[in-house]
Amino acid sequence: MTAPSGPEAGRAHGPSGLQTPAGTVGPVRVVGTGLLGASVGLALRALGVDVVLHDPSRVTVLLARDLGAGRLPEPSDPPPALVVVAAPPDVTGDVVAAELAAYPDAVVTDVASVKGAVLAALTAAGADLTRYVGSHPMAGSERSGPTAARPDLFVGRPWVVVGTEASSPEAVLAVRTLVTDLGATPVMLDARVHDEAVAVVSHLPQVASSLVAARLRDADPAALDLAGQGLRDVTRIAAGDPALWTSILAANARAVLPALRATRDDLDGLVQALEQVVEATGPHAVPGGALGTLAAAVAAGNAGVARIPGKHGGARRAYDVVTVLVPDQPGELARLLGDVGAAGINLEELSLEHAPRQPVGLASIAVLPGLGTTLEAELTGRGWTVAG
Amino acid sequence: MTAPSGPEAGRAHGPSGLQTPAGTVGPVRVVGTGLLGASVGLALRALGVDVVLHDPSRVTVLLARDLGAGRLPEPSDPPPALVVVAAPPDVTGDVVAAELAAYPDAVVTDVASVKGAVLAALTAAGADLTRYVGSHPMAGSERSGPTAARPDLFVGRPWVVVGTEASSPEAVLAVRTLVTDLGATPVMLDARVHDEAVAVVSHLPQVASSLVAARLRDADPAALDLAGQGLRDVTRIAAGDPALWTSILAANARAVLPALRATRDDLDGLVQALEQVVEATGPHAVPGGALGTLAAAVAAGNAGVARIPGKHGGARRAYDVVTVLVPDQPGELARLLGDVGAAGINLEELSLEHAPRQPVGLASIAVLPGLGTTLEAELTGRGWTVAG
Repeated sequence: MTAPSGPEAGRAHGPSGLQTPAGTVGPVRVVGTGLLGASVGLALRALGVDVVLHDPSRVTVLLARDLGAGRLPEPSDPPPALVVVAAPPDVTGDVVAAELAAYPDAVVTDVASVKGAVLAALTAAGADLTRYVGSHPMAGSERSGPTAARPDLFVGRPWVVVGTEASSPEAVLAVRTLVTDLGATPVMLDARVHDEAVAVVSHLPQVASSLVAARLRDADPAALDLAGQGLRDVTRIAAGDPALWTSILAANARAVLPALRATRDDLDGLVQALEQVVEATGPHAVPGGALGTLAAAVAAGNAGVARIPGKHGGARRAYDVVTVLVPDQPGELARLLGDVGAAGINLEELSLEHAPRQPVGLASIAVLPGLGTTLEAELTGRGWTVAG
Repeated sequence: MTAPSGPEAGRAHGPSGLQTPAGTVGPVRVVGTGLLGASVGLALRALGVDVVLHDPSRVTVLLARDLGAGRLPEPSDPPPALVVVAAPPDVTGDVVAAELAAYPDAVVTDVASVKGAVLAALTAAGADLTRYVGSHPMAGSERSGPTAARPDLFVGRPWVVVGTEASSPEAVLAVRTLVTDLGATPVMLDARVHDEAVAVVSHLPQVASSLVAARLRDADPAALDLAGQGLRDVTRIAAGDPALWTSILAANARAVLPALRATRDDLDGLVQALEQVVEATGPHAVPGGALGTLAAAVAAGNAGVARIPGKHGGARRAYDVVTVLVPDQPGELARLLGDVGAAGINLEELSLEHAPRQPVGLASIAVLPGLGTTLEAELTGRGWTVAG
């Protein structure tokens, strides 16, 4: 059941494991078989690695097994070479400490989205940190549980690896190997840098999205009918799981707090500026400082969004964007993209914008700089209405 | 130059206009030939309506003319039947008042994204409100100016029409007719309801997006490398024009203020909850109320985002979503969508997610409820890796 096949099968590597074609040494014990844990199991099984599953919920672990993420433990099992803890952030520290104690030869990692709190809990518990290397795959879904798992969840994603001064080189290598085996790109960061980074690029956006969406609860139904793509984009991640996000925000409170405070202060400045506008006796009596505050906030956003890298590492506004009118019928978008492909031009990003209850859509096609004019000409020549 | 062709051409309708096939009576005078004004001109010209252009910038008006949005005025022109003011919100009231005075038989509308402030300015100026009907097309772009204009900018979009008690039925009809001629859907609202609606569905999301993006200015470069689709979605509209948004926020200050204050108060509650978490002596000492505040904020966002209507009027989570791995090569996405079309299934929404610098993408295909399983089977049968 556990022997991998292929040319590397059977090559001895350590007391209890086999070198797989992919590099990760089994058996791998996955603790917590929700979306992330089950996805790790599915991906490792696809590489022929022996995966043993554990979850405090019997239903969850049986479901993960039935989906092909691994097998249940057996009394005759050798100890695991690697343990992957995929538990909620607030219990991850305790679980990692227990696994380090239970398997004194195993390397243990976790996939929690906060790293400093886990490390602090392990240090406080006196755990053997030489065999612990934290990690955090930048992958997920609004859905959760093993049924949402997929073996390619991590393909092409950054996966942060957080070694400490205490981590052994062997432990760091084992976790890096796991990351690359699963198709992700390892990004080595320390816990503080990681936690501050995700506070700004993940946790603050989640909070902002939730707060904007919360204002829609009591909005006039007429307001919802005016919802456009901007609102949809800003609030998409507001559909995230409250229990999971409570756990994440609490575990990363020290890093999230400064980002939230700064945003609160910025927002307070905007409230005060708008109060000055309302209190002014007429449009020409508005103090210039108030308008300057509004403009500076939008300009600061311009500067920030320009720093987000695009697929090829440049700023994303380096793309040319061609917008095309697409009839809302099966096959029309395929025909459009077929024509893009026939022009020999690679599509970098695509978004399709639909108005509520209307029979047309607008496809925005981003291509590498300089190709936009060519693409426009090609598409116009093929009968498409190019809108800009 | 001005006579429309077609079967309706030449049918008299009022002293100065001709009934076009589309319904709108010309000449139409467009004041302000940026993105919106030039798009109105392009769309009306495509219907054969005579369009006369005016803009305080000579370059802007000549550019709009050369792009086909209309013609320059001539001394022998009849007075316009309809004036469309497409000026920045802060000057719209003054411009509308001047147009009402200059053309005493014309209906005048404007397309500013705030309506109460314009109406207040007109009332204060003693303008003839019987001939004024405000409006606001829910369409736009991060780009601006006549070169970004397109005749289909309004197709399928809601377009709010704001009549007052003083508006004549003929004036309301003329503006509704303009809206439907341009392919948009008229939504009749009063100024207060409109302004409160856009404060929540447009102006607050803009502010939130800008504030989140602003935090990226000073972020560690490593943080930007961890940017995922959530951050990109939340910050897309942060690329908007600071001058335009300053004008919009100031003009709608009365309606935006309550939304911003409520958000500031919510954010302040989260800051206090996180402070309690940080001050707690350990993970098990965190007061339950603090965690409850975090969870309630995310849950409120869940409830709000669920109210956003989908294309067919339902809540958007009613869609089935099928996620497929797409190699990053020309034509692959087209081939996928061709296979979706070949399955006879209409694509409702599409998003393509790319990881930075990686050779694969994930296409999320939303289809009507009940069709997801069929689509998965069809795509798997055609060799695609369906990921969930």
